Parts: sequence; structure tokens; C-alpha cells
Amino acid sequence: MSRHTPLVQQLIDALRILPGVGPKSAQRMAFSLLERNREGGLQLGAALSAAMNKVGHCQQCRTFCETALCHICTDPSRALDGIICVVGSAADQMAIEQTGQFKGRYFVLQGYLSPLDGIGPQDLGLDKLAGLLSAEGVNELILATNPTVEGDATAFYIAELCHKHQVKVSRIAQGIPVGGELEFVDGTTLSHAFSGRKAF
Amino acid sequence: MSRHTPLVQQLIDALRILPGVGPKSAQRMAFSLLERNREGGLQLGAALSAAMNKVGHCQQCRTFCETALCHICTDPSRALDGIICVVGSAADQMAIEQTGQFKGRYFVLQGYLSPLDGIGPQDLGLDKLAGLLSAEGVNELILATNPTVEGDATAFYIAELCHKHQVKVSRIAQGIPVGGELEFVDGTTLSHAFSGRKAF
Repeated sequence: MSRHTPLVQQLIDALRILPGVGPKSAQRMAFSLLERNREGGLQLGAALSAAMNKVGHCQQCRTFCETALCHICTDPSRALDGIICVVGSAADQMAIEQTGQFKGRYFVLQGYLSPLDGIGPQDLGLDKLAGLLSAEGVNELILATNPTVEGDATAFYIAELCHKHQVKVSRIAQGIPVGGELEFVDGTTLSHAFSGRKAF
Repeated sequence: MSRHTPLVQQLIDALRILPGVGPKSAQRMAFSLLERNREGGLQLGAALSAAMNKVGHCQQCRTFCETALCHICTDPSRALDGIICVVGSAADQMAIEQTGQFKGRYFVLQGYLSPLDGIGPQDLGLDKLAGLLSAEGVNELILATNPTVEGDATAFYIAELCHKHQVKVSRIAQGIPVGGELEFVDGTTLSHAFSGRKAF
């Protein structure tokens, strides 16, 4: 009979909701905190409660944010070009921000169209996006959705929206990733790389 | 300028105290909870606070436990043989319990002797262990410490304690692990396996 005491078991079960954490790592995490870092465990507990209760969405771009508007939407310099980049998640937005290349604003879908899961245009805030497109000062919308079935479907839907509002729409390039080996790139990506070739 | 809002950043920083969680996975965990499982995040927060505040140590065997004595120490059937198994951590105890083979009691050191880190016999509760050894009904002590320098040093120290109290002391066998390939077993383990060979 191998079992944990109720509170330890409860902690291990709760840790398993974290992505990539199975029963073994959950036990390792619980014991590590109990043995060596109770102070840190308490801080993590408080940080979780605070974030879950208080982090909402930016009213304009839908990214995670605990104020009405996020720091990008309130920065006038990010609106100069009138470019909005549409991404699927806050993590995707963060990845693009880290390149330091994009100086416009974002629109974070927080998911993709998926009729089977009951996720429709309303759930992705596409009515709000349509509102942005009809406003002054939006010159271009860049689609940076995932290159998956759902991501593509969502991109097509949003492109239609742009055509209706007569806003220029583009999509980030698909091709071979830098540092990859051609031999191991899949066929679809290679096709995209060929059809999207550029003068050299 | 890529940055998170204060509460999100605080959550990501707090998640990094978990073993094996780097900046990327911490961000993934935070976004996953914020996007899809706020309820679970709140439960994890509550479970952490409860466990960190209320889980203590069994007064007899030092394993994690929120009552005075753990369920093994209060089970009279586990005292029948008078055997105590000494392990380094609650995780090691759990691994042994899961084999279902050992029916005695445990003593959980919660660490190993390490003079450089200032961890002495008192910190491992070895005075408490000496008390157990001088009590009636303890016939054998099995050392199941890690096969590392610290584990070995601690094992020798405890073996001395047993000699002093005239309690039989043994150590779990060292040899080749089941399912391993001989070719890849290190030399020290192979030597142990040879010197510990048994009639077949």
C-alpha cells in the first residue's frame, strides 16, 4: 500500500494540470518544494491565485493584461504604420515581440476557428477585429496564424473580413526554417518554399 | 521590448522554482492556465498553500505527514518483523513502497551527511534514529541510501550507530539493473556485481 497523505496527494494531483507534467514529475515537484523551498511554494501559490483572479484581456487586442488596455495598445508609436498582426495566442505574440522586428500592433485570437469544438468567430473576438478594420488608420493586416488546418481556416476567414473592409492583407512567409537541413524538411513546406521563391 | 504584465511575469518567475522548469516551459504553463484552466490554477494555488503550511514530518520516521505519526508508523503490522529501512528521501520511500515487497517501517533522513553544506547528524535526525535503535523490538536496519559519495558516508555513519546499539545492519544489493545491457554498465557497478555474486 503506497500512498501519500491527503494534502501531499492533493498537491501532486493539482500539479498535473500543468502541461508536460506527469505523475512522476508532479511527485518530484511536490517533494522538492516540501523539502527545500516552502517559501517559494507559498509564493507560487499566491502568484497563481493573483494571476488567475486578476489577469484579464486587453479590450483592444485581447492579449493577457490586468489593465483595460495593454502596454502595446497604449503606445502611440506602435500605431504609426497602421499595421495589425493577427496571432493565435499570447505565446505567439511574445515570440514575435522577441524578434524586435515588428513595430505595429497585435490582435490576439486566443484560439482558432473550430466548429467541431464550438469555437466560432465570436469566441475569437472577430467582431472586435472587424470594428478595428473599419476604424481610421489601419493600413495593413498581417496574418501570423499557425500553419495548421485550423490556423489556415481562421486566416481565410479573416482575409475575407479584410477584403470586405478594403484593408490590405498579407501572410507571413512559409518556407524552410533557418538552420534546418533540406533533407529533413517535409514536402508541403518544400513546395511552399519553391512557390514562394525570391530573386537572389 | 517584449515583456509580460506584472502579474503574468510574477507567475512565470514563481513557476521556475519547480524542478525542471525553465523560462520557456514556465511561460507555456502560465499561458496554458490563463487560457484554458483558471479553475485548475486556483486549485493548484490553494493546494500549494495548504501543503506548504500544513505538511510536517512524522515524529517517528520523519517522512512527510500532516499528522503526528504517518500511516506506516501507526500500522502495528509494519512493526512485526522489527525491521527499519533507512532511505534518503520521501521519494525513495515511495519507490520502495511501490514494489510492495518491504513490510517493515522506514526512517527517512530527508538528506545526506554533507559537512561542506553544513548538514550534520542532527539535521538528519540521527539522534532520533539512535533512540529507535535502543528501543525494544528493532531486529534489523536495512540501509537503502543512494549509491553516491554522500549516501555512502551516511550509510557508514549509521552502520557505526547500529554496531554501537548491537542491531544487525544490512545494505541493499548493488549490481546490474534488471533490463540493462551489460555492455553499457559502468565499471564500478560491474565490480560490485562480481563481488556480490550469488550461487545459481
